[in-house]
Amino acid sequence: MARIVMKFGGTSVADLDRIRAVASRIKGEVERGHQVAVVVSAMAGTTNQLVAWCQALSPLHDAREYDTVVATGEQITVGLLAIALQEIGVEARSWQGWQIPIRTDGAHGTARMLSIEGRDLIRRMQAGQVAVIAGFQGLGPDNRVTTLGRGGSDTSAVAVAAAVEAERCDIYTDVDGIYTTDPRIVPRARKLRKVAYEEMLELASVGAKVLQTRSVELAMNERVRVRVLSSFAEGPDTPETGTLVVDEDEIVEKEVVTGIAYSRDEAKVTVRKIADRPGIAASIFGVLAARNVNVDMIVQNVSAEGLTDITFTIGRADLPRTRAVLEEARPQIGFAEILTDPNVTKISVVGVGMRSHAGVAGTMFRALADKAINIEVISTSEIKVSVLVAAEYTELAVRALHSAYGLDAA
Amino acid sequence: MARIVMKFGGTSVADLDRIRAVASRIKGEVERGHQVAVVVSAMAGTTNQLVAWCQALSPLHDAREYDTVVATGEQITVGLLAIALQEIGVEARSWQGWQIPIRTDGAHGTARMLSIEGRDLIRRMQAGQVAVIAGFQGLGPDNRVTTLGRGGSDTSAVAVAAAVEAERCDIYTDVDGIYTTDPRIVPRARKLRKVAYEEMLELASVGAKVLQTRSVELAMNERVRVRVLSSFAEGPDTPETGTLVVDEDEIVEKEVVTGIAYSRDEAKVTVRKIADRPGIAASIFGVLAARNVNVDMIVQNVSAEGLTDITFTIGRADLPRTRAVLEEARPQIGFAEILTDPNVTKISVVGVGMRSHAGVAGTMFRALADKAINIEVISTSEIKVSVLVAAEYTELAVRALHSAYGLDAA
Repeated sequence: MARIVMKFGGTSVADLDRIRAVASRIKGEVERGHQVAVVVSAMAGTTNQLVAWCQALSPLHDAREYDTVVATGEQITVGLLAIALQEIGVEARSWQGWQIPIRTDGAHGTARMLSIEGRDLIRRMQAGQVAVIAGFQGLGPDNRVTTLGRGGSDTSAVAVAAAVEAERCDIYTDVDGIYTTDPRIVPRARKLRKVAYEEMLELASVGAKVLQTRSVELAMNERVRVRVLSSFAEGPDTPETGTLVVDEDEIVEKEVVTGIAYSRDEAKVTVRKIADRPGIAASIFGVLAARNVNVDMIVQNVSAEGLTDITFTIGRADLPRTRAVLEEARPQIGFAEILTDPNVTKISVVGVGMRSHAGVAGTMFRALADKAINIEVISTSEIKVSVLVAAEYTELAVRALHSAYGLDAA
Repeated sequence: MARIVMKFGGTSVADLDRIRAVASRIKGEVERGHQVAVVVSAMAGTTNQLVAWCQALSPLHDAREYDTVVATGEQITVGLLAIALQEIGVEARSWQGWQIPIRTDGAHGTARMLSIEGRDLIRRMQAGQVAVIAGFQGLGPDNRVTTLGRGGSDTSAVAVAAAVEAERCDIYTDVDGIYTTDPRIVPRARKLRKVAYEEMLELASVGAKVLQTRSVELAMNERVRVRVLSSFAEGPDTPETGTLVVDEDEIVEKEVVTGIAYSRDEAKVTVRKIADRPGIAASIFGVLAARNVNVDMIVQNVSAEGLTDITFTIGRADLPRTRAVLEEARPQIGFAEILTDPNVTKISVVGVGMRSHAGVAGTMFRALADKAINIEVISTSEIKVSVLVAAEYTELAVRALHSAYGLDAA
């Protein structure tokens, strides 16, 4: 018997039949004796329609009115799901963000949660009532509805789990868990039973788009145990079901490398022949930061004749803007030319165990060299080693590394 | 310069183009210097879809969850209309029932408004902001969303007009005003410039379905001046536009007869040969009231040999139930037989002026006799004379009366 939060995304509640299926899954947990809160998204397609209407009326619409319109998607789902639950004999009631309330800041459209009043929810859950909660929304300081931005329902679910002191937050998705790498590239990728918050953050930010990054950060801060599992899987729930995202202390046998992630949305920029003097890097990255260009990996070549090259990576979508910003600042920075390459992929090996193991990077470089893959940029952190390679080597590199670290399924 | 409330129904906001047209009409009032609050319904079709979903999941759904789902229709409209207004330079913000708040009782699905907090609305209207208010909804005593029942947006608009002390409540509909009778039957029917609340109630309840009865009652109680006008009419607003529904004191030249109404949804029931003793009528209408059958006109024949007949009218849909209820109570009532006739129409002449004029009924009976139309039942009230005739005479009778009272347009 435990208190759990279950979260279902838009695909899982896309029509009345799927809402009935979700209700039946919730009933299963109630019958196992659990106290249940459910967080749901809008029915798939609804939010897009509502957003399209707002944009058609005004490209620069008032974000407060946008939130008023868009929040109706989740409101519809919670009402319908509560009805579906009652119909199969499960006591339930719906909750909108303003009713709980889930208080947020005033950043309409991209609000951040400040607090959730959990006492009434807990009292009712203890009395056997399922709380069906609208994700993605809250109440701003001006008593108006706010939304958390796309994908915010994951974050809502984790925040609710913290507020009701749930033992676990189950995120139902269209995959059955977190894998050692993308199974479309490596068919022998293995589903992980447990992954540490820090690992999940690295895996999420570099390509495994299962959980919203903010939701993982929140789970880590609030120590909420998150489980990722499939909303379409049949059969009983077992300890093998899904993947648990937890504190690394809960992971007894820490893998040196847990997974291989990749991101194709990268571009490489090299600023050639700049003066090798103190403050030159600051001048480049200062102008980029001022224009909201996020820079990821950075390397600086050894200096020759007082001149050096600086190479860095950015999101590919930012490439034209980056070039323009740098050209504009050329008089103050002083450089010979800018070289850019949009055809690059970042590949990362991730694992909390690598903190205490040497040789992780060496294995990586050897494995890539064996396949004659040239490494363009390298960066490392405590639990990650990333390299930039030409995009055409993506699959080859991911497969080689997956084997090199012994991650292939038997 | 005045403070006004404008109300637009679902057809008027059915798509983005119509929402833009409504915004532009509101802008016109703002530019004339008026302080404006707007009450809107859901986009046509939306409410039906939401209701259908609730019913598909559970025929006996929780009315509280039904309200949660259905109230989203108006929430979408207010957000979109506020965006459309801002886009054309009109300061506006949306209001949901719980934000104002519009407090109601707890009768989910058919709630009655208890109070509206108007001070903040007035303050903002005075500062030039248009208040765009969701009709049809409020906040129940349990902090949950309630709805007022179908057509409730008219009532919302009148209640808001009372709360903000508006000079007038303009109800935009698909007709351009209230007519002396149904123009489909009498092409020479005239649009009325003014009609008294009491007349409107009689006209509404007997067939002119322009305004919801509850909204007229509320307007009468709160002395809110209501104007019915077309949402599709072009050109400037003049004193001739629409029909004003007002206190009869505002109507200087009171017509003896303002209009001719009819209702085809009637059925006649005659209970034959019952004992003519005290309490016999009570026994018949008692059992009908207990089973929620509404009885309208009632006549009792003169007694012969201690026996009498009682004839009354009911809504046609109630006919099978009425027959069953009476047969069930036959032992205690005691009667020979029940005769029923579903092919009858009630025709009413209405006018506040008839209070002070004799001869209204006489004119009616003469006009009908001239066309050889038999009157089956007669009932009268202070401002109305109604007769029941065979349904096939409906058009003939309405036309004859419209001419007899001099209502035909020149």
